[in-house]
Formats: sequence, structure tokens, C-alpha cells
Amino acid sequence: MSQNLTIDTDRLWASIIETAKFGGTAKGGIRRLALSAEDAQVRDWFSAACEAVGCTVTSDAMGSMFARRPGRNPNMPPIAIGSHLDTQPTGGKFDGVIGVLAGLEILRRLHEAGIETEAPIEVINWTNEEGARYAPAMLASGVFAGVFSLDYGHSRTDRDGVRFDTAMDGIGARGTAPLGHKLSAHFELHIEQGPILEEEGKAIGVVRGVQSIRWYEATLSGSDGHAGATPMRLRKDALLGTARVIEAVNRVARAYAPDAVGTVGLIESKPNSRNVVPGEVFFSIDLRHPEDATLAEMDVMLRDAITEIAAADGLGLVLEETWNAPAVHFDAQCRARIAAAADAFGYGHREIVSGAGHDSAYINRVAPTAMIFVPCAGGLSHNEAESATQADVAAGANVLLHAVLATDRALAEANS
Amino acid sequence: MSQNLTIDTDRLWASIIETAKFGGTAKGGIRRLALSAEDAQVRDWFSAACEAVGCTVTSDAMGSMFARRPGRNPNMPPIAIGSHLDTQPTGGKFDGVIGVLAGLEILRRLHEAGIETEAPIEVINWTNEEGARYAPAMLASGVFAGVFSLDYGHSRTDRDGVRFDTAMDGIGARGTAPLGHKLSAHFELHIEQGPILEEEGKAIGVVRGVQSIRWYEATLSGSDGHAGATPMRLRKDALLGTARVIEAVNRVARAYAPDAVGTVGLIESKPNSRNVVPGEVFFSIDLRHPEDATLAEMDVMLRDAITEIAAADGLGLVLEETWNAPAVHFDAQCRARIAAAADAFGYGHREIVSGAGHDSAYINRVAPTAMIFVPCAGGLSHNEAESATQADVAAGANVLLHAVLATDRALAEANS
Repeated sequence: MSQNLTIDTDRLWASIIETAKFGGTAKGGIRRLALSAEDAQVRDWFSAACEAVGCTVTSDAMGSMFARRPGRNPNMPPIAIGSHLDTQPTGGKFDGVIGVLAGLEILRRLHEAGIETEAPIEVINWTNEEGARYAPAMLASGVFAGVFSLDYGHSRTDRDGVRFDTAMDGIGARGTAPLGHKLSAHFELHIEQGPILEEEGKAIGVVRGVQSIRWYEATLSGSDGHAGATPMRLRKDALLGTARVIEAVNRVARAYAPDAVGTVGLIESKPNSRNVVPGEVFFSIDLRHPEDATLAEMDVMLRDAITEIAAADGLGLVLEETWNAPAVHFDAQCRARIAAAADAFGYGHREIVSGAGHDSAYINRVAPTAMIFVPCAGGLSHNEAESATQADVAAGANVLLHAVLATDRALAEANS
Repeated sequence: MSQNLTIDTDRLWASIIETAKFGGTAKGGIRRLALSAEDAQVRDWFSAACEAVGCTVTSDAMGSMFARRPGRNPNMPPIAIGSHLDTQPTGGKFDGVIGVLAGLEILRRLHEAGIETEAPIEVINWTNEEGARYAPAMLASGVFAGVFSLDYGHSRTDRDGVRFDTAMDGIGARGTAPLGHKLSAHFELHIEQGPILEEEGKAIGVVRGVQSIRWYEATLSGSDGHAGATPMRLRKDALLGTARVIEAVNRVARAYAPDAVGTVGLIESKPNSRNVVPGEVFFSIDLRHPEDATLAEMDVMLRDAITEIAAADGLGLVLEETWNAPAVHFDAQCRARIAAAADAFGYGHREIVSGAGHDSAYINRVAPTAMIFVPCAGGLSHNEAESATQADVAAGANVLLHAVLATDRALAEANS
């Protein structure tokens, strides 16, 4: 009955456009930081839309939202479709959003087609995936999967010193759903955020896993001084030292080309005044590589470089590794169902490794998990100009739908 | 009668300590940005203190304050003692402050000694000397001296977009005193903000002039991208480009050692998120050298370097020179009176060139002007740990007092 089912492309696209107004920017992007007023708006919208097709929406102690459509077998753990509705400060309309809204579209389609699945279907909006407001990224899925403690999650602070739990309660996002309930499987549709699918003309990426990631926070401390009256020989310029570290991060990534990447994304210089030699700079470092062992080598090279720069410039150094996510390998059965669905529709597909972290990377620890990538223009993401075609998003959503249905059939057979 | 007059060292020190509470920081410094609530507090305090010793306090259209003590000859332009009460975001207790409060101490001493001068004595608090909130620095003295138009002064905006005139009216600092009234002379006592006097054990610096200064604002534009999924080869990282410019600014200053200095003091990276390749960075550059011709060479070297970096990294560049202050040479007579006063007290002194800009640099264009420097610990300034001894500040105030009195005697003789 459900073999020929497809999602409603126009309705899915309309919900992407409609929700893009919550935090919408002049340049066509979205600024919807986790647990902000804009995040509250999209959460309310999502909740109402799911309830309208007969779902029950609950939240857990990290504010993650679970919209559950009942199955024939109420004791069977749900098949989850999860991603996130928060964005970067100047994010696009697709990153995270299409994963949740494709899930909503699937709930709507199953509802109007009157299809009863064996397992419940649960569409999940994971809180604070981006890590833009609260580091580390994928915080709530990490707590769900037991990677972080609930206390750790609640006590994260943003750059203004506001705790996660304070912000969560500020928008009423905290719920009472038990933390970390069992899932039969977890599927996530996402834009690639890289150039490969577009370059090769493939509609679907079957994601093999996620590369290894390490995050660091560094503070270099020198001495504030008058920019006119402090001779160069007497300076301890923390920003000059930081400039040298930024160059070193680039050098480390280039040394492990073409797969390694290295980024200084966040920088705060003090006192940040035109005529004062900067006395203190705080900054982040992000290093990634598909192989854990290679990333460990990069870590050593980075630490050596920073230590040497600080010593040579007479600067104090505090360097802390704040996140270490080993490489992730997704479930083979889930990946096979994605590939089979793509084949059934005649979509071109290939295996691919995710350069970005995703909630699925943590959920993979507690449930069979896999991801579907669709192309985005120019590989551009975390950018207001982020763009994906209606056809590609629809293709991804159809593959998602049929990977879920195939999983449900397998569960029903195993249970019969 | 007034030859043996000295200021009250303890009272001067007490007023430095008392006013340091307006914007006082935990580390013993001051955060008192121009036209802020803290600035309003110190302005009220200063006004009341001057009125208590019989002075009339007025303000001009830039909010600069003039506390006038009448002389025998009401038609004679006043002898001015000027500096500033605003500070850097993490400034110290001495920069600017001692120049104004030594002036107040002189008003008090003349008042209690019942001394009548020929010319009026006017103690001036120039608005927004630091340039920390409103660029360029020395904004109000620049308008007073006709270097900038009043419209230009009023229309400067801080980094939050608040106009100067809006902030001025917000604390009621605008006055109706005619802009740019005539001064018979202008003296300014200031900490050196460099290491020379301390290293040589001299109490007094007779300032020959101020070095040449240029300020720039630069924006490098690349492209926001996902830190995990954007390959190094496809990046246009504006922060990496900025790091290279910071290194180049350092190289330009070192190429003209030992007198040249170069600083990137202000940096704002967008979107400033851990996992986004920075797409746009705004930053300031400050270059200085005692000779105009040398600074012009440095300007060429800097522009070549930035242009080359932007082109090599595929970044857009907007580079604007926002301030160009030629080298300043102070009045020979005023300097001689400072040296003579230092000799009379037996204070060691030397000629010195100011590395920092000062209100006196602009006032020198419209009135005979000179400055007195006193040592500060380690040459440290624009720093909460900025420090000067009570004895050195008192020595500077005594020299200031007698340079003013000598100027008054010369005016009286010329007028008789």
C-alpha cells in the first residue's frame, strides 16, 4: 500500500519558507540561536503542526522535542526522524531545518494516507545542535545518548554568562519526558554542507559516518599598553600572538591535506580599543579529520605550535580541549535501506563521510542510525546564502520516508 | 608672593583616589567611556569642586567643560590647563585624570592663597580624548581647534551606532559656551605612557611635541562556511587574512625600529561562531612615527602588504584612512617656562617626544601650548595597572603651577 507513497513537495517547501520567518534575516538567512525568542517561535509552530495531525508532543529535560505518531504496537520503541531547528548567528534556511520539516511532512503524509505503522514514528527537534550559543555542539542529543551528564548540559553558559537551563526555562522549553528513551532507529536528512554531491551530480549521499572532531578554547595573555607610547620591544601583544596561532591552525590542516580542516571561528580581543595593545585574546579552534589517528597527530602538531608561539612572544597560555568526538560509523542496515530507497526512486547516490558533526553522531551510540545528504549550492553552509533545490530536498525526504517504512516493515516481520 | 607656592600633595592625591570610584574596576583601574553614565558622575563632581572655589563652569557644543577663575583683566584670554576625564575600557587612574585634577588643585591653591592673576585661569576637561568610544581620539579638542567641523563631531557613532550628540544630550553634557574661544596659552600635565623617564630617573619630561599618527579602518570579506564541511581549498577565510595583516602591521613597525609603532587594537569577526569559517572581519590599524616623512613610507608599505594579502587570499578589501595627524611641535616659550620651573624645584628633566596623541596636539594650532610628562611604572598605560607615584604627580603639578604663573607674569608685563 505504501510502496508508491511520496511526500508533497510543495507543502514541504512551503513549510521551509514559512518557518524561515522565525529569525529571518535581510539577506535571506536565519538567525535562530538555541533557546532564543526566535527558537521559541519555531518550536511553538512545530508543536502545533504536529498536534494537528494527531501527534503527541513532549519535551525532555534538555528541551529536545518529540512528536510521536502512534503505531500498531505501542510497546515498540519509535523509529525516529531527528534533526534541529536552531541555526548559526548568520545561518541558512536548510541546515537542520529540512531534517525536522521532512519529518513533519512524513507525519502529514502518513496521516492523510491513513497509514498505520507497526512502530510509533517520532520526529525529533534536538536542542542546541549548532553549538553557536552553547558549546559544545549537539549538546542535547549528547545528553540524550549519555555522552554528557544532564548537569553538564544544564550548566553550559553562553558568552553572556547565561546558563543553558536558565535560557531553557526562559522560553518554557523544559519538559518532563524521560531522558534517553529507547529508539528502534534514528534517521536524519541533512544538506551535505560540502561540494561533493553537487560536483558529481548526485542527488543523494548515503552517509557512512562522521569525521573525528576536536574543539579547543585558548586564551593568550599579554599586557595592555598604549598603542602610541609602548615601544615594540616592550610589547606583549596577545592579538599578534593569536594571529600567529591562526596561521599555525591553517598550517596544521594543510599538512594533512586534502581531508583535514582547521578553523578559528570565534575570537574576542580585550580591551578591543583602537589605541590599546591587546592584552588578552580568547579564541576557539576546531580541527577535524576522517581518521582518529590522524587527528591525534594534528593535535600534537597544534599544541607544539601554540606552546612555541606563546613562549616566543612572552604570552601566558591557557589551552583547553573542550570536545573530542571520535569518528562515527553509521549502522549498515540503516544505510542499506537508504541506498535501496534511492535506487527505487532512481536517484543517483554515493557513500560519503560527513565533515560536520550531527545529532546522529551521538544517537548512533544508542540506536541504529544513518543519515541522508542532499546537495547544497557551492557546498556553502553556515551562511545566509545557503541554498538547496526544491527537487533535491524532496528527493531526500522521499528517501527518508521509504527508509523509515522499510525499517518499520523489518521491525514488524521480526516481531511477528 | 607666589614664588614659593606649592600645591597640596595629599589633597591632589585624595581627589585622584576619590574620582577613581566613578567607573572604578575590580583591578584598580577605571572604565569611564566618554559620555557614559560614569563620565556624567565625574563631570558633576568636577563641576561642583570648581564652583566651590569660586569658578564659573561652562560647556561648549561638544560637551568640553571650562572652569574659569577670574583674573584682574577680564578681557585677557585665559591661561588654560586642560586634559581629560574619560578613560579607555580598561584604563588606569592617571591617564588624563591627573592633568584635570592638578588643574583643580591649582584653582584650590590660588583660591586659599588669595592670589589674583592677571589673566583668568581656565581648567578644561576635553570630551572624548581617548577615542575608545568615538573615533577619532581628541575629538572635542579637535573641534575646538577647527580641525574637525561641529557636524563631524556630532555625527560620529560608537560601535553600537549611537551618535556623539545623542550620547552627549543623554547625559546633559551639551553647553552653550561659544566654540573655540581664544586662549592665552594651554598647558597639560600627563603621565608619559612610555618607559623613558622611569628608566633615566627623571621626574619631569618637557614635551617637545607629538609624533605623527595615522589611523585606518579595514574590512576583509570572504565567505562564511561550515568549519567541518568546507575543504581548505574552497575557503575564503577573512580571519586568516586578518591574521596575516596583523603580522604585516608588526613587520612594518619593526622595519622602522626603534621609533615606529604599529597596532591592531580593535577586531570584530563575523559571524564569530566556533564552527563557522569567518566571512568578514573589521579591524583598526594605528601607525606612528616621530617624522611625517617616515610615517608616509610606512603607509605605503602597509597598503602594499594588505592589498597583496587580500588578493592572494581571494578576499574583498575596504581600507580607509580615518585619521592623519601630522607631527606636532610645541611652543618654545611654554616649554622654556616648564624647564625653568623644573629647575627651580631641582627636579631632573629632559626633552621628550610624546608617543601618544593628546588634546594639546590640536590646541597647539590655536594657542601657545606645551606639555609636562611625569613617569609611570613600567611605561604601562591604557591598562588597569597603570601607576604613578604621589611624589611624581606632585612634582608635575608644581611645575604646571609655576609654568602657568610665569606665563601670567609675562602676560602682565606685556600688557603693562
